[in-house]
Amino acid sequence: MALVMTPAQQRLLADLSGRLSERAIVTDPAEIAPWETDWRGRYHGSTPILFQPASTAEVATIVAAAVRERVALTPQGGNTSMVGGATPPPDGSAVILSLRRMNRVRSIDAEARLAVAEAGVILADLHAAAAAQARRFPLTLGARGSATIGGLVSTNAGGTQVLRFGTMRGLVAGLEAVLPDGSVHDGLAALKKDNRGYDLKQLLIGAEGTLGIVTAATLRLVPAIRERAVAWAGVANPADALMLLRRFEAKTQAIESFELLPDDSLIAVLAHVPDTRAPIATAQPWHVLIEAVATKPDDEPPMALLERLLGEALVAGLVRDATAATSEAQAEAFWRIRDSISDAERATGPAAQHDISVPVAAMPRFMIEAAAACDARFPGTHASGFGHLGDGNVHFHVRAPESVEAARWYVDEAPAVTRFVHDLVVAAGGSISAEHDIGQMKLAELERLSSPARLAALRAIKTAFDPHGLFNPGKLVALAPSAPSE
Amino acid sequence: MALVMTPAQQRLLADLSGRLSERAIVTDPAEIAPWETDWRGRYHGSTPILFQPASTAEVATIVAAAVRERVALTPQGGNTSMVGGATPPPDGSAVILSLRRMNRVRSIDAEARLAVAEAGVILADLHAAAAAQARRFPLTLGARGSATIGGLVSTNAGGTQVLRFGTMRGLVAGLEAVLPDGSVHDGLAALKKDNRGYDLKQLLIGAEGTLGIVTAATLRLVPAIRERAVAWAGVANPADALMLLRRFEAKTQAIESFELLPDDSLIAVLAHVPDTRAPIATAQPWHVLIEAVATKPDDEPPMALLERLLGEALVAGLVRDATAATSEAQAEAFWRIRDSISDAERATGPAAQHDISVPVAAMPRFMIEAAAACDARFPGTHASGFGHLGDGNVHFHVRAPESVEAARWYVDEAPAVTRFVHDLVVAAGGSISAEHDIGQMKLAELERLSSPARLAALRAIKTAFDPHGLFNPGKLVALAPSAPSE
Repeated sequence: MALVMTPAQQRLLADLSGRLSERAIVTDPAEIAPWETDWRGRYHGSTPILFQPASTAEVATIVAAAVRERVALTPQGGNTSMVGGATPPPDGSAVILSLRRMNRVRSIDAEARLAVAEAGVILADLHAAAAAQARRFPLTLGARGSATIGGLVSTNAGGTQVLRFGTMRGLVAGLEAVLPDGSVHDGLAALKKDNRGYDLKQLLIGAEGTLGIVTAATLRLVPAIRERAVAWAGVANPADALMLLRRFEAKTQAIESFELLPDDSLIAVLAHVPDTRAPIATAQPWHVLIEAVATKPDDEPPMALLERLLGEALVAGLVRDATAATSEAQAEAFWRIRDSISDAERATGPAAQHDISVPVAAMPRFMIEAAAACDARFPGTHASGFGHLGDGNVHFHVRAPESVEAARWYVDEAPAVTRFVHDLVVAAGGSISAEHDIGQMKLAELERLSSPARLAALRAIKTAFDPHGLFNPGKLVALAPSAPSE
Repeated sequence: MALVMTPAQQRLLADLSGRLSERAIVTDPAEIAPWETDWRGRYHGSTPILFQPASTAEVATIVAAAVRERVALTPQGGNTSMVGGATPPPDGSAVILSLRRMNRVRSIDAEARLAVAEAGVILADLHAAAAAQARRFPLTLGARGSATIGGLVSTNAGGTQVLRFGTMRGLVAGLEAVLPDGSVHDGLAALKKDNRGYDLKQLLIGAEGTLGIVTAATLRLVPAIRERAVAWAGVANPADALMLLRRFEAKTQAIESFELLPDDSLIAVLAHVPDTRAPIATAQPWHVLIEAVATKPDDEPPMALLERLLGEALVAGLVRDATAATSEAQAEAFWRIRDSISDAERATGPAAQHDISVPVAAMPRFMIEAAAACDARFPGTHASGFGHLGDGNVHFHVRAPESVEAARWYVDEAPAVTRFVHDLVVAAGGSISAEHDIGQMKLAELERLSSPARLAALRAIKTAFDPHGLFNPGKLVALAPSAPSE
């Protein structure tokens, strides 16, 4: 749809024309269209202009001009947000600021274990660049072929290796950003200690682009993996799974992933994803996927380690059945099951999805009790959680009753399910957004469920940095209380 | 000195009288006096009232009343700031809010490795409480017998175990704080993942009490030490010391401390601190103190580990002489040398002290070049650095020429030395405050050396939280640009 530009947008375009590199301004609707809708097709935005600057200086120029003309900016990286965080508003009031052309890995210092990557670097490309120097950037997730460093920083991304290395927050050693006044904050120097007042880096991590534009980051690297082993185990319940993890952690630091899934997730994958097969022969109510690695020559071979630890756990009755992948192809097949759960569940039917966390020790009980409460409250639905047990973070999905009409269920029923789940999470002292952020999807729920003190603090920060609401408008926090909506 | 209360302070006192627990209000000048001056006797403040609330609710009551009456608050824990951060202004305009009575360890969960400690808990007491449950709170520093959790959080404290476990920022899993509107931010739940907007916890850590009052923290614990070994080695220069550390890190994760000191620091300690003796017999230009630990039954015994690694380093020529402490008493004696450097240097004569950081890889060269530049620029002075090489953080001290009059030198000469050192640090991409914070001591230097963008961001945050400048006035950032001073 061709949009008419507002007078302010026209002035902005006139101001910037000729001042930026060749491909930095896009106004062809066909070229803009793919970036107006989120990757799952849930949020539809609209914009007459897409900027794609090639350098930090160009970002600063665009930001300064946009603020001068009061034109809002929707920053965008790989457009893989789970919460509509990178989709512009539908009314055409904002323009997209895509960082994708800023895709240089500026430097890798293998000795100091640091990489400096621009905001548009795709995660998989950073993985490859680090591997070429016998180092590794440990954070990874399903969207690694599209997600960009700027987006991962701005959403404090998690993924499947958080257990050992933490979220993005723990891996960012320095940041470069363009602040709302158009100035460049140069914080790329990787200082392990720096107490010069409020930590702007920490504030920008996870701010979803609402306080300024991240243009580059200095990232910590870890030693490359020499060898890995992947195992699959059947367990009786989430409590046993957590006990298993605790036993492992008491004996080794080699466990990098520990993912939990219920039997029905496995069944959905086997039914809907081609070329998948059950890793173990027996039927089990719950499953864990475990990855162990060796990075140093003296480290115990991870296969021997897992066989030993799982053997002990079998004897102790904590594990009911287990197998280790005997080849890299089989290891990848195990991981493919885990990474296909969301797709498989979508094929199964409509579901309300929730990315939630509670304290780790409370998660096994929460999973069981919340699922039972949900099933009782919404007859015909089926609730279950899967994911990062060791992080206290699961994706808690509530499947719609069979034979409902999907579109109608999402509008008429799902919001009540979501509010019910979120209320349980808050009652358990948890978070309604563990790793997927707020974006536009959870804005109203964040307002509904946050204390007045917390909301006031969020608004005060937003207003201090962006008084006119020009940076990623409609995401994370509304400057004024928004009308109740879902 | 008895101070006359301002009318606002009188109203505050009247408002709070009878609403707080028995010992919560102190107006006896003799009882207040010890808390009006910092522990090194450099900063002298004055106040007519000291509040010492016993609970978070009482803190909230005091904060709300103080904001209503526009009375400024100087929060104070153990009063061990190195930068005058806990000393009230000399004009009596602020009252002290001491957290020392909030000294309960609320809970320790050994399984989840978490402790909840109130702001007034003394660090050594937390160490003991964790040890009683076979766990350890790893952060430690010289002032552990006085420093409190609230102060350690609010200053993002460092210390000698940062190498492995990071600063306070990495050890805080949750926070409770009273915000400037008198509301209680309850963020004690230890969520490993939580992306509900801007991270208030991260903002309050290191804010020096200027954005609100930290009342309690959930802190990460680590396994107790089963066995430790401490070694002393002589090296040719800081570059060799860093290479030694890198070699160790490539082979083990057991190194917890790696402290570097020049020969003249050792000589000063031996000359001025009773019952100290040189760990190694040969004279060496630089020394490193290394601590390795074992926490799991299968870990290599740390003594054997250090002997093996140091033996290899001797053969490789990286180390010139080395010895390992053969008893716990000897290990403590090695540490006493390190911990006595500041005292010994004070006894040697006046010195300008700087707590600085640069990227780790840049530190060896910085230490040599900055010392040479300093000695050349200020004839008769002697500059050298010691401390946390692996963190890129040293305490860079410039000794006054012999036979100067101390008081006069501090006023007439030291400020220029400090500005010179700080300029070198900034040129190297470093920080003028690595772990001691800004307080009142470095306020003018932070303003002089920060980019306008950074200063504007700091002021915007401060104004958003504390528009009337009532929280720890005169520390960290001035609401309006301050007059040049030292």
